[in-house]
Amino acid sequence: MRYLIPMTQISKSPYKGCRDLFPKLKREQDYLFSKMREVASLYAYEPYDGPMLELVDLYMAKSGEELINEQIYSFKDRGDRFVAIRPEMTPTVARMVAQVHRETPKPIRWYCIPNLMRYERPQKGRLREHWQFNCDIFGGPEVLSEIEILELIKDLLEHFGATNKHFSILINDRAIVNELFSNVLKVDEQTSYKLYKIIDKSKKLPEQKLEVLMDEILSSEQKANLKKYLSLNSFEEVFSFLDIKSPLRDLIEKVQETELLKYLNYDSSIVRGLDYYTGIVFEVFDLHPDNRRAICGGGSYANLLQIFKESPLQGVGFGLGDVTLRDFLITHDLMPDFTQPDDAILVTYQADEFEKRAAQVSRTFRQAGFGVESNLKPIKTSKAFQLAEKKNYSYLILIEGPEIVFKDLVNKKEVRSQTINDEIWEILN
Amino acid sequence: MRYLIPMTQISKSPYKGCRDLFPKLKREQDYLFSKMREVASLYAYEPYDGPMLELVDLYMAKSGEELINEQIYSFKDRGDRFVAIRPEMTPTVARMVAQVHRETPKPIRWYCIPNLMRYERPQKGRLREHWQFNCDIFGGPEVLSEIEILELIKDLLEHFGATNKHFSILINDRAIVNELFSNVLKVDEQTSYKLYKIIDKSKKLPEQKLEVLMDEILSSEQKANLKKYLSLNSFEEVFSFLDIKSPLRDLIEKVQETELLKYLNYDSSIVRGLDYYTGIVFEVFDLHPDNRRAICGGGSYANLLQIFKESPLQGVGFGLGDVTLRDFLITHDLMPDFTQPDDAILVTYQADEFEKRAAQVSRTFRQAGFGVESNLKPIKTSKAFQLAEKKNYSYLILIEGPEIVFKDLVNKKEVRSQTINDEIWEILN
Repeated sequence: MRYLIPMTQISKSPYKGCRDLFPKLKREQDYLFSKMREVASLYAYEPYDGPMLELVDLYMAKSGEELINEQIYSFKDRGDRFVAIRPEMTPTVARMVAQVHRETPKPIRWYCIPNLMRYERPQKGRLREHWQFNCDIFGGPEVLSEIEILELIKDLLEHFGATNKHFSILINDRAIVNELFSNVLKVDEQTSYKLYKIIDKSKKLPEQKLEVLMDEILSSEQKANLKKYLSLNSFEEVFSFLDIKSPLRDLIEKVQETELLKYLNYDSSIVRGLDYYTGIVFEVFDLHPDNRRAICGGGSYANLLQIFKESPLQGVGFGLGDVTLRDFLITHDLMPDFTQPDDAILVTYQADEFEKRAAQVSRTFRQAGFGVESNLKPIKTSKAFQLAEKKNYSYLILIEGPEIVFKDLVNKKEVRSQTINDEIWEILN
Repeated sequence: MRYLIPMTQISKSPYKGCRDLFPKLKREQDYLFSKMREVASLYAYEPYDGPMLELVDLYMAKSGEELINEQIYSFKDRGDRFVAIRPEMTPTVARMVAQVHRETPKPIRWYCIPNLMRYERPQKGRLREHWQFNCDIFGGPEVLSEIEILELIKDLLEHFGATNKHFSILINDRAIVNELFSNVLKVDEQTSYKLYKIIDKSKKLPEQKLEVLMDEILSSEQKANLKKYLSLNSFEEVFSFLDIKSPLRDLIEKVQETELLKYLNYDSSIVRGLDYYTGIVFEVFDLHPDNRRAICGGGSYANLLQIFKESPLQGVGFGLGDVTLRDFLITHDLMPDFTQPDDAILVTYQADEFEKRAAQVSRTFRQAGFGVESNLKPIKTSKAFQLAEKKNYSYLILIEGPEIVFKDLVNKKEVRSQTINDEIWEILN
């Protein structure tokens, strides 16, 4: 065999900002994924997935500028196509829906859990690679679609044991912000675009820096109105400040007397960074003092199919990353302990002559649907017990003669038998 | 909102060689994945995953030349690191095992189902992107580890309904091939390397082309011996041609009287393209005349940790791609029909005044763990039936007055009630 061994030692570390998911971490992730799938099914969302690579054009048309220019992994393939590793799922789902929306009954409800990559400085809760639960509803009626998506998120987090002590849903409406821009501030489209960026950053920037940014593009009267808007802190306040009919107003009316209402809070700074949102926008916010950050975001969009020259199709969607969700659950002590492997029957034998018998016994239990770890070489009884304990297994089988010794380690029972008899099956079932 | 709308229309098609997994296809894939996880658990393999990007160095050291030079998606990141999208999982799992093998009890049994990309000409059964079920056992005893891996593959395919009428496991042993090279042909390492490539292609190349390739590097006596080797067609023949102790010989002895033996066939041309195999190598071969191809391959390797300057750790592993597996199942009519979405209760209402009631009813069923599709706008009763039929749902709820009308569409039962009563719950449970 020839090996192409490089001169330098190969690194054992994962690529920067990516994770090696060793079994404990992967079991945690599988736990997150299984709840995501479960709750998606409760709402009759159908699974889909798309390619990890897309042509860059798709993102040029759909995503925010920052994402394209700074945060995307893009390169030319050998056929000179300019491609990118998917940094988010919305452009892909739009591309796919554009193919089938004409012949598919509405609403279209889809979910997926893709792995995504963004080129960014790794920090807590933000890695270069993560998996993201995405749900979208296309072609449903406005407001009821938003409520369904918000209830789905609430149910998901409640399935993990979270309550309104742990998270809040901060919500806003771009229709309201657009009203502010057009009829209160009376600014043009270009200024509106800049103002979105300012509002998006308003809670993170120091007061003084914010003032400077506003002064650059607004008159003192416009600035006063914008500051008034930014100070709005409740649904009552915003609905009286801008007394217009808006999706958010309808939504709040419809969710009176529901559990969802307990989670909703108005936040004037929520506008979402991605350019395609047009209506209600929201972020799920962790209430723990050690982890005050958004763990999920989404909103409504009206024009996603436009770039494919398809007729408009209203939609609502969100993305929830596995890294932020895991941080959230760990912060609130809601992550079960996945240190141990899944339970299995440990089958051991004490001398080479029993190797064949051990293999047969392992096969029999597997055929009956039980997980079996076969110890593939003879070991002493004491070692067998140590191994079962180390892996937290409930059942141990010792083959040390003509008899099978079956140990129920949890209930401290023992069965000795020439065959796998009814007593053993009864304990297992 | 500002959109960066390109002049040309954006394509709705996926990137070349990649799939858009619409719900039917994704349900099929999820079915494959769930069986993979199920069978991995039967053998107590633990889940893991790694990054979709790795430094190219990792592949330079581990994989075959063809893979690196022609088939890899590689590029420089913004930090000038030369990276690649993972084309296979073995180098990643080796890197990860190298980090933890010292403190982890052996054998280490791991599985994963990553998405991988290879730059190749798309054709039936070979796409640029696929998902691949990978299982590896590290640090187990030789031969018994190989048997475990082969039984796991057999069990997986049997879980899909396949038998030895559908597939065969073609097996060989690089120890035997090395014996041929060193002690029969007596060729040097460089010639051995070339001969591996020739043997690998021997069944696909025309006889004449094969002769030319052999003539280039072998004497007529050597060529005669190589041709004799290539003509070997059974375990008896190979063990008498090269009467040495070898892992394959031990394996065949140990699997006498097992079901696995029915699947095993000797194939002198199986050596596997990847350079890291050192012992037993195998391919699962589809026996259907319309799909005569390998659907899975793997083998034993002794030196995977060498490039990390770690002590040697013997391992056995295989990869089974979702594209080839799906083709295999469809060819043999073993793929269930996933055209329809999963069963759910369809909740409908006939006038706006019942919207709130419908939402409450939907919530109640979801809280009880049932999948519910809420129709988010009033529809006529006849339309509700059509919709339930179209999606193949078993249960339909009509809210058209103070009563809930619950329809069991399979058993043609109806319950009318002011509340969701016991009769309804009984039908559902």
